[in-house]
Amino acid sequence: MSTVLRVGVVGAGAMGADHVRTLTTAVPGVAVTEVYDRDTERATQVAQGAGGSVATSAEDLIGSDQVDAVVIASPDSTHADLAVACIAAGKPALCEKPLAVTAQDALRVVEAEVALGRRLVQVGFMRRYDPGYAHLKATVASGALGEVRVVHNVHRNASSTTSATGPGIVTGSMIHELDTVAWLLDDEVVGIRIESPVRDGLPDPQLATLEMAGGALATVEVFVNAGYGYDVRCEVVGTAGTAALAPAPSVSTRIAGVDGVAVASDFVAHFADAYRIELTAWARAASAGAVDGPTTWDGYRANVVAEAGVAALVGGARQPVLSASRPALYAVGAR
Amino acid sequence: MSTVLRVGVVGAGAMGADHVRTLTTAVPGVAVTEVYDRDTERATQVAQGAGGSVATSAEDLIGSDQVDAVVIASPDSTHADLAVACIAAGKPALCEKPLAVTAQDALRVVEAEVALGRRLVQVGFMRRYDPGYAHLKATVASGALGEVRVVHNVHRNASSTTSATGPGIVTGSMIHELDTVAWLLDDEVVGIRIESPVRDGLPDPQLATLEMAGGALATVEVFVNAGYGYDVRCEVVGTAGTAALAPAPSVSTRIAGVDGVAVASDFVAHFADAYRIELTAWARAASAGAVDGPTTWDGYRANVVAEAGVAALVGGARQPVLSASRPALYAVGAR
Amino acid sequence: MSTVLRVGVVGAGAMGADHVRTLTTAVPGVAVTEVYDRDTERATQVAQGAGGSVATSAEDLIGSDQVDAVVIASPDSTHADLAVACIAAGKPALCEKPLAVTAQDALRVVEAEVALGRRLVQVGFMRRYDPGYAHLKATVASGALGEVRVVHNVHRNASSTTSATGPGIVTGSMIHELDTVAWLLDDEVVGIRIESPVRDGLPDPQLATLEMAGGALATVEVFVNAGYGYDVRCEVVGTAGTAALAPAPSVSTRIAGVDGVAVASDFVAHFADAYRIELTAWARAASAGAVDGPTTWDGYRANVVAEAGVAALVGGARQPVLSASRPALYAVGAR
Amino acid sequence: MSTVLRVGVVGAGAMGADHVRTLTTAVPGVAVTEVYDRDTERATQVAQGAGGSVATSAEDLIGSDQVDAVVIASPDSTHADLAVACIAAGKPALCEKPLAVTAQDALRVVEAEVALGRRLVQVGFMRRYDPGYAHLKATVASGALGEVRVVHNVHRNASSTTSATGPGIVTGSMIHELDTVAWLLDDEVVGIRIESPVRDGLPDPQLATLEMAGGALATVEVFVNAGYGYDVRCEVVGTAGTAALAPAPSVSTRIAGVDGVAVASDFVAHFADAYRIELTAWARAASAGAVDGPTTWDGYRANVVAEAGVAALVGGARQPVLSASRPALYAVGAR
Repeated sequence: MSTVLRVGVVGAGAMGADHVRTLTTAVPGVAVTEVYDRDTERATQVAQGAGGSVATSAEDLIGSDQVDAVVIASPDSTHADLAVACIAAGKPALCEKPLAVTAQDALRVVEAEVALGRRLVQVGFMRRYDPGYAHLKATVASGALGEVRVVHNVHRNASSTTSATGPGIVTGSMIHELDTVAWLLDDEVVGIRIESPVRDGLPDPQLATLEMAGGALATVEVFVNAGYGYDVRCEVVGTAGTAALAPAPSVSTRIAGVDGVAVASDFVAHFADAYRIELTAWARAASAGAVDGPTTWDGYRANVVAEAGVAALVGGARQPVLSASRPALYAVGAR
Repeated sequence: MSTVLRVGVVGAGAMGADHVRTLTTAVPGVAVTEVYDRDTERATQVAQGAGGSVATSAEDLIGSDQVDAVVIASPDSTHADLAVACIAAGKPALCEKPLAVTAQDALRVVEAEVALGRRLVQVGFMRRYDPGYAHLKATVASGALGEVRVVHNVHRNASSTTSATGPGIVTGSMIHELDTVAWLLDDEVVGIRIESPVRDGLPDPQLATLEMAGGALATVEVFVNAGYGYDVRCEVVGTAGTAALAPAPSVSTRIAGVDGVAVASDFVAHFADAYRIELTAWARAASAGAVDGPTTWDGYRANVVAEAGVAALVGGARQPVLSASRPALYAVGAR
Repeated sequence: MSTVLRVGVVGAGAMGADHVRTLTTAVPGVAVTEVYDRDTERATQVAQGAGGSVATSAEDLIGSDQVDAVVIASPDSTHADLAVACIAAGKPALCEKPLAVTAQDALRVVEAEVALGRRLVQVGFMRRYDPGYAHLKATVASGALGEVRVVHNVHRNASSTTSATGPGIVTGSMIHELDTVAWLLDDEVVGIRIESPVRDGLPDPQLATLEMAGGALATVEVFVNAGYGYDVRCEVVGTAGTAALAPAPSVSTRIAGVDGVAVASDFVAHFADAYRIELTAWARAASAGAVDGPTTWDGYRANVVAEAGVAALVGGARQPVLSASRPALYAVGAR
Repeated sequence: MSTVLRVGVVGAGAMGADHVRTLTTAVPGVAVTEVYDRDTERATQVAQGAGGSVATSAEDLIGSDQVDAVVIASPDSTHADLAVACIAAGKPALCEKPLAVTAQDALRVVEAEVALGRRLVQVGFMRRYDPGYAHLKATVASGALGEVRVVHNVHRNASSTTSATGPGIVTGSMIHELDTVAWLLDDEVVGIRIESPVRDGLPDPQLATLEMAGGALATVEVFVNAGYGYDVRCEVVGTAGTAALAPAPSVSTRIAGVDGVAVASDFVAHFADAYRIELTAWARAASAGAVDGPTTWDGYRANVVAEAGVAALVGGARQPVLSASRPALYAVGAR
């Protein structure tokens, strides 16, 4: 417990600032020593709150002798290069999802890690650290549900930004389910179809059907303009029973004829605990010079499936998921 | 209130016997006067319990001057002919679903009614009388959910008989949802796709996607070997919110580490109230010489969509739903 | 099934009118033939809707050769005399709770029945027919909860009339729980204490503690100005587990940040099914010339406990419940 | 953020070991430097896991220049003296509940703090840090419930040790509610009554009624042999509505006819988050040389009410709560 992990954070936007806040107030054994953002003012504000300094570039931060490990929370388009830079520098990193904008770029990160021979970059699929999802996976693994046949997913936001696009909903929102289902079942998505109820304007909600290599099917509804709030549901249906995430409100009220509970407003509130647990686990592993969370291969797979999803959304037909072969470094059960 | 509706029941199997029990113990203004079943012993037992007599044939029962109205609960293959016979005799009937085995046969019933010029046959889509579904439809109609984009349905049985087949699951089980979704949205199904997670043996569960004429999509999971019990769920997703059937257990227990409620064992238990309300409403209308429930057109439409579903199940591709034109007798809002 | 039970209804206020509506639309084998109310206009309106005639007095109605059985839904102060009159006439009756205004008057009814030697009057403790309470009692009786130690009850109305008084809340509202707990446990209340959080003005809510002869304790919160709606809760706590009434909303919605269900507005809506089942069971038994529901002894016992409760409310101290001895006609298990 | 708070922990039993585990794995800015326990082996095991050393006595630990702040998790009888020692040493402390075995001893700690003129000792009423209770208090404070009239509490353990006694249940278990209700309402308990359903052997469950100075009433059921699991419930009833802790299971399952969620096995599992948040908040405040959680006055008040409760349990009658006057140091709103 004597040494402190010195963390550098690239990106001081909403996600980066939130990670810094969590690292400094809720994760033991960590100090945020450097922050970089293209917006220097924003970087300064976040760095000061954490007692760290401002780096002059992402590259300098990654190379700094004041930084033991790196959190990548900059714009998506920079993720792959920064992840490769962390691998080159031999420093553990937590890279926000997606690992890359294209599957091809994600594969570059995978290949860099494979060339190094060990895992240094963890992808920010934080749902795996959510107590509900973790309990759900344990329930599946226990065999209590029998053989899994179907997984139903619902993923709703109150409203989207005006820049939302059909493909962007797949790569930015549905990508969570593309990873989660594979992880829950220890399986891989081999086919995807996406339909959307209204064909003019933004295709939202989107209904996806995922075919798993093992024969199960998964449905995903992503609705980024659901109006009423943020909501994530997942039910696993087996031959002996089902298990589902249970909403976990802290208080229920009965007022004016309604017996109700509040719905979370956004994912930050909904998954606050998952982010804290993710960062704590990552910091603990990074202190030992490695990572043991979602792999760059998981990040690549999610990109590959998302690209098939975008093609399916546009063309309407089912798309096969074609990917590179899984390197031995990411053999199942490696985590 | 002075006259009693004299009801004849064709079919004294599980469904017919249950209808007789409900009619005699829970529906006012009704007497079951005649019962027919190919199995005379069974007919006798059911008739005696109700204080009625045994008819020598279904045709005799329909023509009997002791019978004002008819409940058809005989094997599916006899439904269409019996419904036509009731129309010919000018007697109100409640015909168990499906109205016919083929859409073509169902259309014969529709045409007989259209020729007569008034509605005499009601199809046993009893879910429309379930308080939950009725409340759900009222919620949709209130506009509180905004514009409906998606309807999610789940329909599970604990286990199926060994004679279950893929097409049989569509025409026998999923047919409820094929009617329910159209009714909930006052819309029609114009396309259907069905996928099943495991391709060898019985295709079960089945995941269907329904395209509605108005642009909404509906998903349906039918799983007739779900193991844990009987379960029917429905969630309507609109642009302003969602509404779902709420499970209505009467008691919850906390025993041995579990806070739980019982799941219904079968549809008879789950929908007992719906059957009672259906029969009460039908008897009230029949006493006035008419019916006002699910129409033969609804029964025909369900058959048409089911036939497209069977084709989709076999071929894998999306199937359009091609049907005759809606006669004026069944204009929307006629009920 | 051939004969119809001809029912006379005394009292055409809200409760009486609702009973007539239920009897004519939801109970088989019944005709409402006569109605009496001091307000002739009201009686006429209710009688016409049911196809019956207006009686000139309650006594005439009870004595009429057009009336086989009587529902007593007139003001509380008339209950005991009318019940005695029904016994004298040898006609089965359903008497709304309370059986009498005083325990002494209730005992008169008991004694009349004991003198006759058979049970003719059933008291309207309709909660015993509510599916939830019935399931709860069956769960207790199954032994699954072990030995019962505590029963918690909550009974809330949105608002009370301005004429509400502390004693009136005990005798008019809490009286339901005074009966229910004894019935649930097949036990008797032997002591009662009532406290109220605010001592000036109307004592509301009231918190009662009931001591049962068998050693268990029960708590009761009655709050007739709870503001948010009508709510009845009951939890039985045993040495092996607990069982509770489960709220049974038909639909849940997620709108504007709230995941909620509607609370019933009043007891008529909440217990509609219980009233229907009660009247159906009573009519079936009355058709055979008897009753088998809550007895006049149950009605008397509730009055005795309520009187002790009123004394406890005023004096603050625990009051013993002193009652006559249970006649053999009402031996436990007689129902 | 540069300095680390060096924490000494007195007591390496279940509670102490759990606090050390939480401090080292989930609380930032903290190092456990010394551990003391009468059982040296146990102390050694816990100290080694945390990277700390073993102290030779509690007094040495409190006086050590390697200890900035102290967690007191030793047997109850030692709490008061150790708390006074921490005050004498000028070191912030977190003292597990109860603050003392008797109200008189608790008052000694209060007086020591008052003499010092600032708050150094925080009592381990960790429920105040539970997200559910915190949300409940915020809901009460928001005014959304109107004026609070009643608080219902349930507190159940699966089973008690064989050494459980009636008074011990009051001082060891119910003491949580004695503090919680006062804190929720910003009010004080001025009277208490306790009844128990079975009079022979262990009085368990216990039903307490608390009178608050402001006029509200609270009920408490403590049942330490509830059989089915650990369960804590709290409902606040106001004139405009109610709010209650909502059970927060992470997963619900439907298996073998039951739709259920798991009940926590014990308080450590149920309140794990509350302990983490408590220790994090305490460490943050202690790093600044003070505490801002439940005060020694709160600890004293809970002891005073518990002593009245024990008298009430034995004697049966309502007992007034007589206490010293609140020193200015603990004025309401001081936290």
